[in-house]
Amino acid sequence: MSSSWGRQIKLTVFGESHGPAIGGVVDGLPPGLAVDFDQINQEMQRRVPGRHQWSSRRHETDTYEVLSGLFHDKTTGTPLSFLIRNHDAKSKDYTELLNVPRPGHADYTGAARYHGYQDYRGGGHFSGRLTAPIVFAGSIARQLLALKDIQIGAHIRSIGSISDQLFDPIHPAADLFHDLAKKQFPVISDACGNRMQQLIESARKDCDSVGGIIEAAAVSVPAGVGSPIFDALESILSSILFAIPAIKGVSFGDGFGISRLRGSEANDPYDKIADHDGIVTTSNHNGGILGGITNGMPILFQVAVKPTASIAKKQRSVNLMTGKTTDLIVKGRHDPCIVPRAVPVVEAAAAFALLDVITQIKGLEYWL
Amino acid sequence: MSSSWGRQIKLTVFGESHGPAIGGVVDGLPPGLAVDFDQINQEMQRRVPGRHQWSSRRHETDTYEVLSGLFHDKTTGTPLSFLIRNHDAKSKDYTELLNVPRPGHADYTGAARYHGYQDYRGGGHFSGRLTAPIVFAGSIARQLLALKDIQIGAHIRSIGSISDQLFDPIHPAADLFHDLAKKQFPVISDACGNRMQQLIESARKDCDSVGGIIEAAAVSVPAGVGSPIFDALESILSSILFAIPAIKGVSFGDGFGISRLRGSEANDPYDKIADHDGIVTTSNHNGGILGGITNGMPILFQVAVKPTASIAKKQRSVNLMTGKTTDLIVKGRHDPCIVPRAVPVVEAAAAFALLDVITQIKGLEYWL
Amino acid sequence: MSSSWGRQIKLTVFGESHGPAIGGVVDGLPPGLAVDFDQINQEMQRRVPGRHQWSSRRHETDTYEVLSGLFHDKTTGTPLSFLIRNHDAKSKDYTELLNVPRPGHADYTGAARYHGYQDYRGGGHFSGRLTAPIVFAGSIARQLLALKDIQIGAHIRSIGSISDQLFDPIHPAADLFHDLAKKQFPVISDACGNRMQQLIESARKDCDSVGGIIEAAAVSVPAGVGSPIFDALESILSSILFAIPAIKGVSFGDGFGISRLRGSEANDPYDKIADHDGIVTTSNHNGGILGGITNGMPILFQVAVKPTASIAKKQRSVNLMTGKTTDLIVKGRHDPCIVPRAVPVVEAAAAFALLDVITQIKGLEYWL
Amino acid sequence: MSSSWGRQIKLTVFGESHGPAIGGVVDGLPPGLAVDFDQINQEMQRRVPGRHQWSSRRHETDTYEVLSGLFHDKTTGTPLSFLIRNHDAKSKDYTELLNVPRPGHADYTGAARYHGYQDYRGGGHFSGRLTAPIVFAGSIARQLLALKDIQIGAHIRSIGSISDQLFDPIHPAADLFHDLAKKQFPVISDACGNRMQQLIESARKDCDSVGGIIEAAAVSVPAGVGSPIFDALESILSSILFAIPAIKGVSFGDGFGISRLRGSEANDPYDKIADHDGIVTTSNHNGGILGGITNGMPILFQVAVKPTASIAKKQRSVNLMTGKTTDLIVKGRHDPCIVPRAVPVVEAAAAFALLDVITQIKGLEYWL
Repeated sequence: MSSSWGRQIKLTVFGESHGPAIGGVVDGLPPGLAVDFDQINQEMQRRVPGRHQWSSRRHETDTYEVLSGLFHDKTTGTPLSFLIRNHDAKSKDYTELLNVPRPGHADYTGAARYHGYQDYRGGGHFSGRLTAPIVFAGSIARQLLALKDIQIGAHIRSIGSISDQLFDPIHPAADLFHDLAKKQFPVISDACGNRMQQLIESARKDCDSVGGIIEAAAVSVPAGVGSPIFDALESILSSILFAIPAIKGVSFGDGFGISRLRGSEANDPYDKIADHDGIVTTSNHNGGILGGITNGMPILFQVAVKPTASIAKKQRSVNLMTGKTTDLIVKGRHDPCIVPRAVPVVEAAAAFALLDVITQIKGLEYWL
Repeated sequence: MSSSWGRQIKLTVFGESHGPAIGGVVDGLPPGLAVDFDQINQEMQRRVPGRHQWSSRRHETDTYEVLSGLFHDKTTGTPLSFLIRNHDAKSKDYTELLNVPRPGHADYTGAARYHGYQDYRGGGHFSGRLTAPIVFAGSIARQLLALKDIQIGAHIRSIGSISDQLFDPIHPAADLFHDLAKKQFPVISDACGNRMQQLIESARKDCDSVGGIIEAAAVSVPAGVGSPIFDALESILSSILFAIPAIKGVSFGDGFGISRLRGSEANDPYDKIADHDGIVTTSNHNGGILGGITNGMPILFQVAVKPTASIAKKQRSVNLMTGKTTDLIVKGRHDPCIVPRAVPVVEAAAAFALLDVITQIKGLEYWL
Repeated sequence: MSSSWGRQIKLTVFGESHGPAIGGVVDGLPPGLAVDFDQINQEMQRRVPGRHQWSSRRHETDTYEVLSGLFHDKTTGTPLSFLIRNHDAKSKDYTELLNVPRPGHADYTGAARYHGYQDYRGGGHFSGRLTAPIVFAGSIARQLLALKDIQIGAHIRSIGSISDQLFDPIHPAADLFHDLAKKQFPVISDACGNRMQQLIESARKDCDSVGGIIEAAAVSVPAGVGSPIFDALESILSSILFAIPAIKGVSFGDGFGISRLRGSEANDPYDKIADHDGIVTTSNHNGGILGGITNGMPILFQVAVKPTASIAKKQRSVNLMTGKTTDLIVKGRHDPCIVPRAVPVVEAAAAFALLDVITQIKGLEYWL
Repeated sequence: MSSSWGRQIKLTVFGESHGPAIGGVVDGLPPGLAVDFDQINQEMQRRVPGRHQWSSRRHETDTYEVLSGLFHDKTTGTPLSFLIRNHDAKSKDYTELLNVPRPGHADYTGAARYHGYQDYRGGGHFSGRLTAPIVFAGSIARQLLALKDIQIGAHIRSIGSISDQLFDPIHPAADLFHDLAKKQFPVISDACGNRMQQLIESARKDCDSVGGIIEAAAVSVPAGVGSPIFDALESILSSILFAIPAIKGVSFGDGFGISRLRGSEANDPYDKIADHDGIVTTSNHNGGILGGITNGMPILFQVAVKPTASIAKKQRSVNLMTGKTTDLIVKGRHDPCIVPRAVPVVEAAAAFALLDVITQIKGLEYWL
């Protein structure tokens, strides 16, 4: 029962939303990577709160301090640790929630798990703030993956019932990933994105929130990554993706839709092309993974993000001291939709997972 | 990269479809459980091939031999190992596939992963036969869980586009689980099940296959099971569920549908009821899990099963020796739909995962 | 290949001797422990450098900052992280060693492992300073163990060829542990300790160093802790003890001496005593562990500490740039004997290991 | 608390001394190794009981059946499982011991750990028979290590107080390993070995037993294998070595003797030699490991083996039913000295550990 993830390259995260700091330790990295801090900063900025109408008005700059594992700005191979101080925590917003668990939140389950000793302020260790260390670690992972041309991108596929187009399952171009990463609201079609933002704004005005679906892709992952049975790549990726708060579904390729295809449709035919080492498939319903192992095609996956649990609307709960039902109005600063901020987190988590799995098969020296 | 799963209670599976035997080792079990072999046999029978029109005509009785870990028919607490001999393997069916990977199968990815040394006969270690050890281990897990009244059930929610009704998210009665476990085709509405079976039969006649969605539930799991971040119960359950061949999606509660709700709809309100220790929710959109931890409500989840990759229809592939595309007709005995046989596997995998997680929190002695 | 240790309760350490900070993350702790910081400070002080003639003249106060995992001074159960800033690092002392590895040190092996990218200043991640996080975590472990009356003590059994008396293997009284913990030079017989200190001082004057043996004991550990085969308690304890720099041997009970006994001497006879739950042994040649599992008697073990590798005497090495042998004089501030400072580290490591193993068997709730 | 060992390449052992079978699963092996079964048989024969005056008169041929993981006699990379049937078990010898724990054995601790449900016949899962799977797995590991010229050898350093000479710490020639592996009583000096065997015979006549020390070496392990802190190579090796029943001490290089050296003696000076990639040391007091990492010199280590706990002499114990002390005479067939049979087990355990650690650093493909 741990806040660590990974086999050969491990990420441990720590911290509470309103404690002194959050942070992480990345252990087992290949030595000698010249870390690009600008790239880390850009990734962190994509996740940071307080920049948009639809994001929390909490202002954290998410500046980090690296405490170990770097020497002359290169990874040493020993644990790389970092911390991010919490500055803009307003704990008094939360004190009255102590005895009345917020619906949709971990207040009640956290108290059950930790016998009431958890730091409940701002969600404590359950806070979405804990995704910042994942983005930090994921950015380092992406820099390593890029050495082998492996790129990861994601976009908002839908907000509520408004859907954008999908990635091209055969050629989800890395250029498109680059454009998406620069967008404050990462959609393929900006027109569609505008309608999504209107929906978010409408929810916000209603003191309510909306969810959505994120689609992600990884390209240039070599064939042969993953394992049958328990270390299926789907198992590994879903394990880290479900660690992101608010995610309630993970699927690969055509996902749940594949259940409506016939085998003759779902089986991706093989083809040989001139300039490719190995073979390719002419469709990608399986999302680049067969038998738990990559086939060299783009890895495609989707995650379902539930609407933000924190809403200002009146809700029903129970006062645990009195045992009586009560109305609850949640104060504090919250995102009416966390989907845009979850996009870089999804990418980062997938990058970290791929780094770990590839390293297990290819060895640490693959990256040197 | 391993064929083991679990932290405190571990399952290791081994074997190839056409090798001498498959089997498993369950390590870390609580000592003193009087194992009910009839129950194991019943669970194994639910998964066994060759019994229905829609299942493979391979006839394996899946009789097992327990080699260790039992003494006077009670668990000793030391590794419980068992094996299931393979009897009805017809390896010549597969030899011609050596150089032409079957679309939708792990032939190509397995060769990439294992550098061509894998046992390709009948899918080898990738075969659905490897789910038999999961059912065996899951049946023992269920017997332990039952000591605390924890029950698990599942049903076919859809085949292709034909959908059955859902579990009652608040009261997916254990009685219903019992009825479903006895059905050869586990659906809530048999009328609906008949239409599903017609669809399967229709696909079979077309030398094709169909997929579906399985819905599962676990009841009476106490609140407080799971963890924030990386050991979220969703992470743990999805990790073992994606180990089941052909599963391409896993979701909890309302799953991907939750992305279309507003927060005021998705947040399950709390209520106090007289005869319950703790509080309950009046809806269950979150599937009994908040912040990665159970809230005491039924755990609800769905898995998407792709159509069987083995179809007798002509498909396009590449001959890896010649580098030329070729038509391929897959021989052998295959299920036109594996969804019914996957139902007990999903239940077993979930049972094993819950046993492991609950033991980590409550301790081995919880079960004594 | 990781800087983490533990199954259910994990310690991750990070940092380099001359980097910004060292620290650790303790994950999986039981919630609700009222942490006694005075006790942590006392344990940290026992290890701190710069206090004695025989210890390094580097002055670090080893004051720590807790970043997470505490709320109202009680453990929350989520990761408890802490850092210790490095203040008195004099890195210029080390720059000339870059190309000439110091005999007995990890300079050469570290460069081989990390391809030359390791932070070599002051030993980097290999430094004895990395034992400070172990002492911190061990102190918390001891506070939990004390809730069940489990006490751990250690003393200097020998320095060079000068030996002190041994613990009473049946009754290594907790009072004695208490006295030893207060001593700057933890020996049972202070007269003997004086001779040891003279030996250390004599080595220091010779620009040389000496090693020794530490004997440790844990009392009141219940019977039944540990496992056969790979999780033998000896395996678990030795795994963490060999993590302490300079330790080259670990043994239990009579240790290597048991190889000279006959079975009739080494087998500890059982006896029943009135006021004891269970049975006792009338001797303790096996150090309280049989078949990898505790029998309820004191756990006794010894560790061999090599003489400090850092000596001011001229030594022969090779200049890796020129490929020529060269004489080397190591500058810097070093302990002529690290055995006294290793005593609290050995206790802390053992405490942490016992906490983890006992928790795996008894469950987290054992400590609540 | 598990009967599995390893990170990337894992060994799981199962079985009880008097159950149907013992066996193991080796998971994560590199694919494509042409397994030499003659070599496995030879290693198994070195460990097998019943061949010597000083070994148990139980006759087990230790013939194994491989159930999976091999295809055309090469490793597939998927779990390699094997079983060894128990044939010559005489369980009635043990029934009377049920209530009277044998001194020096795991009867009492096993009952405490497993709440009395363990299979107590012949030691059950605690039996030395469980080392047979370790030898099997170790033999496969040795075949892989040999691809890189890594050789492992061991010999009886002492029985009781009779000591043989030591390995040359700089050149423990692989030829010598070869000769030792062929000896029924693996000593360097056969004259010394004769005296040892007389001592064993003398103990046997007294219905007693003797212990000893085994010295082992691994040559040609490349520099850079292992890690600082918790994954020190000493931690890893000791963790698997203490899993061998009856081992009470593990040490490296000069072991406990290093505590009596000065730093100027213990620090192995570096030297450059013409035909060697890298540098060498001119002595090897540190056993080829510095800072937890290999330096390319021979890895040297020792294990202390206690005298066989099973002796025919009258011993004192307690009848747990009556609570009264009682005399006990242990029947059954036992080795008066298990040291000779432990030699191949020590080698096998070390081989498996080195395979796993080297694979973690170099990657699976290092062995292809």
